[in-house]
Amino acid sequence: MNALSFVVESRRAGSGARAGRMLTPHGLVHTPAFMPVGTQAAVKSLTPDELAVIGTEIILANAYHLYLRPGPELIAHFGGLHQFMGWDGPILTDSGGFQVFSLGFGLEQGVGKIARIFPEQATPQVKGEHKPRLTSVDEEGVTFISHLDGLRHRFTATKSIETQQLLGADIILAFDECTSPLASYEYTRKALQRTHHWAEESLAAKTSSQQALFGIVQGGEYRDLREESAQFIGTLPFDGFAIGGSLGKSKRSMYEILEWTVPLLPDNKPRHLLGIGEPEDLFEGVQRGIDLFDCVAPTRLARHGMLYTRRGRINIKNAQYREDQSPIEAGCPCPTCRHFAKGYLRHLFVAGELLAFRLATLHNLRFILNLMREIRESILAGRFFTFKEGFLAEYRTERGERPPT
Amino acid sequence: MNALSFVVESRRAGSGARAGRMLTPHGLVHTPAFMPVGTQAAVKSLTPDELAVIGTEIILANAYHLYLRPGPELIAHFGGLHQFMGWDGPILTDSGGFQVFSLGFGLEQGVGKIARIFPEQATPQVKGEHKPRLTSVDEEGVTFISHLDGLRHRFTATKSIETQQLLGADIILAFDECTSPLASYEYTRKALQRTHHWAEESLAAKTSSQQALFGIVQGGEYRDLREESAQFIGTLPFDGFAIGGSLGKSKRSMYEILEWTVPLLPDNKPRHLLGIGEPEDLFEGVQRGIDLFDCVAPTRLARHGMLYTRRGRINIKNAQYREDQSPIEAGCPCPTCRHFAKGYLRHLFVAGELLAFRLATLHNLRFILNLMREIRESILAGRFFTFKEGFLAEYRTERGERPPT
Repeated sequence: MNALSFVVESRRAGSGARAGRMLTPHGLVHTPAFMPVGTQAAVKSLTPDELAVIGTEIILANAYHLYLRPGPELIAHFGGLHQFMGWDGPILTDSGGFQVFSLGFGLEQGVGKIARIFPEQATPQVKGEHKPRLTSVDEEGVTFISHLDGLRHRFTATKSIETQQLLGADIILAFDECTSPLASYEYTRKALQRTHHWAEESLAAKTSSQQALFGIVQGGEYRDLREESAQFIGTLPFDGFAIGGSLGKSKRSMYEILEWTVPLLPDNKPRHLLGIGEPEDLFEGVQRGIDLFDCVAPTRLARHGMLYTRRGRINIKNAQYREDQSPIEAGCPCPTCRHFAKGYLRHLFVAGELLAFRLATLHNLRFILNLMREIRESILAGRFFTFKEGFLAEYRTERGERPPT
Repeated sequence: MNALSFVVESRRAGSGARAGRMLTPHGLVHTPAFMPVGTQAAVKSLTPDELAVIGTEIILANAYHLYLRPGPELIAHFGGLHQFMGWDGPILTDSGGFQVFSLGFGLEQGVGKIARIFPEQATPQVKGEHKPRLTSVDEEGVTFISHLDGLRHRFTATKSIETQQLLGADIILAFDECTSPLASYEYTRKALQRTHHWAEESLAAKTSSQQALFGIVQGGEYRDLREESAQFIGTLPFDGFAIGGSLGKSKRSMYEILEWTVPLLPDNKPRHLLGIGEPEDLFEGVQRGIDLFDCVAPTRLARHGMLYTRRGRINIKNAQYREDQSPIEAGCPCPTCRHFAKGYLRHLFVAGELLAFRLATLHNLRFILNLMREIRESILAGRFFTFKEGFLAEYRTERGERPPT
């Protein structure tokens, strides 16, 4: 008996688009699905009840952050993530690889939050040189410094799986090396060998029968490495597959990477595109056979006052909304649009009121979750491309802030 | 037809304690009542729906803050505060006097938030000298600088009432001069004359029949001035009365001020003790005839992780709660205690998660609102003193952080 079962219900001929059902120990997920991100065992500003109200079926939490704080043993003491955070639906945890390497990359390049926190340890970029220093990788694992206190820690595949077993998510991920967008072909090739080695170690380390384990396809922007990775990872007995790492320098190269890899993965298992979730990307990912998405964009943009509408994103702090008595989007059934006008939301943002973050997050997440649901329905109804074209014709990433003439 | 009617239902013989009903254009308030504070047209982190769920009947908003941002005209454009913020229950606005003078006092003394924001304008205290400089008061009003941008503004009684009429609360307050705890007798006496003059001006300025107007008793810590003020303000045709200003240097002097003033106020109108709301003070205020309270303590303490329990306040960030699987208070029906353990709340605070502020605020406000309800019921049931003694025997402001032995 597997911890996870996955059934494809319907496919869109002439594309990879498919609608399915993924059953986990904590319930059903209708795919394609979007996972709100609860990095530290909380989706920023929202309660589990609210997540359910806006249509969330599965959330993602970060093994790296929870390993450092509060620690997997503490969460196990509470009976696991579900009980700790009060969310009894499905949860996926990532393996920590992405955070270890992306925070290390930030230190090496002297960019990002971690470089601001530990300036003395952040070294300026030396052109042509790409050698991990503060994140030190070897064949067995990675030694890294905590972004919280600068102390050293070590992750191996076994340590990552043990951590994720203590956290107790329904779906856990193999440990991988996530190479930076600046990595050379040669470095990416070596990192891929480690990732494949760690994939086998992750499978061997897993002892829990109540958790599904997904493998991760890496290989940077290099076609032969991506194909090799999809073929290798695809033959291992994972319950599903994630496509991770550097997805190239443009949306076009991300779509190409999907076109290279997805056809090489088993058709009967779910596929997750890690860290991607803008509206355009959901369509393009689904079209190329992706079943699962996660992304901090809807929640992070919300906290900056960037709100999704069918006609594109708006910046609610813009002065043009000062007197606006209409909701973010007319007819939107989210709790924010049902009760509050744009002018009030703008006031909350300008005044720095905590309520602003909540109301904006509720709207943005509901927008993306609902879009995912509509995409699924369009597949089931055999009108995926019609829906895609109609939606994208109206939607532009950044809406012009002038009222329509 | 008055905008407000007030009926005393029950009294506790041998004290001023009374239970009543206050009917406003936006509904009924059972007194004694506590008002959560929504300074900037939002009770920090909470929605109006949540306020209702935890038993809120009336909230307070600040004319000073809303005058500066977003401006009373904008709120009037939305149909007033109720529509702007989506709260359709009763609202009281203060007149702005307290903020004008307390922020001015902060600048003069070089203390508080405003002195940090405008250090070049904050002057160190000169001993014995108490002369408003950056807040400049004259017989007609006050010129002050905005804590937001340092620009000059001017408030008079007429301007305050006009502002509050645009905001549209059910109950508005007369404009007053709130003297600092350092003010001399002579200064306090002169300020009181201005306050009394402004009380008459406030009454004359009010044109709205849908708003009740409360007068404010001032007089600092000086008995004769407090008595003079209660007698003078009490004879004016206000719909209710507030006791404001410097309430002395100890809880004992605050209780004395109530004992001097409350008996001189008309018995058939509601009395509001401004800015007070710690559990002990609710009992002592009610006992001395107070019907209405407001205070930022429950919400502000919550954001610092200080949580009320029947046995006193706890600091949820304390390491002793790390593994604690019990709610803040066993049996507490608030949304926080029903779903989350202390160990999870501690994690949210330590990790700086936005959800922490919300969950803590919900609990603290519900605690105070429920205490107020229980006080009311004890008056109706003729057991106010029994309830008070039982509650205070168990409750200590700051609970020792060691587990009971």
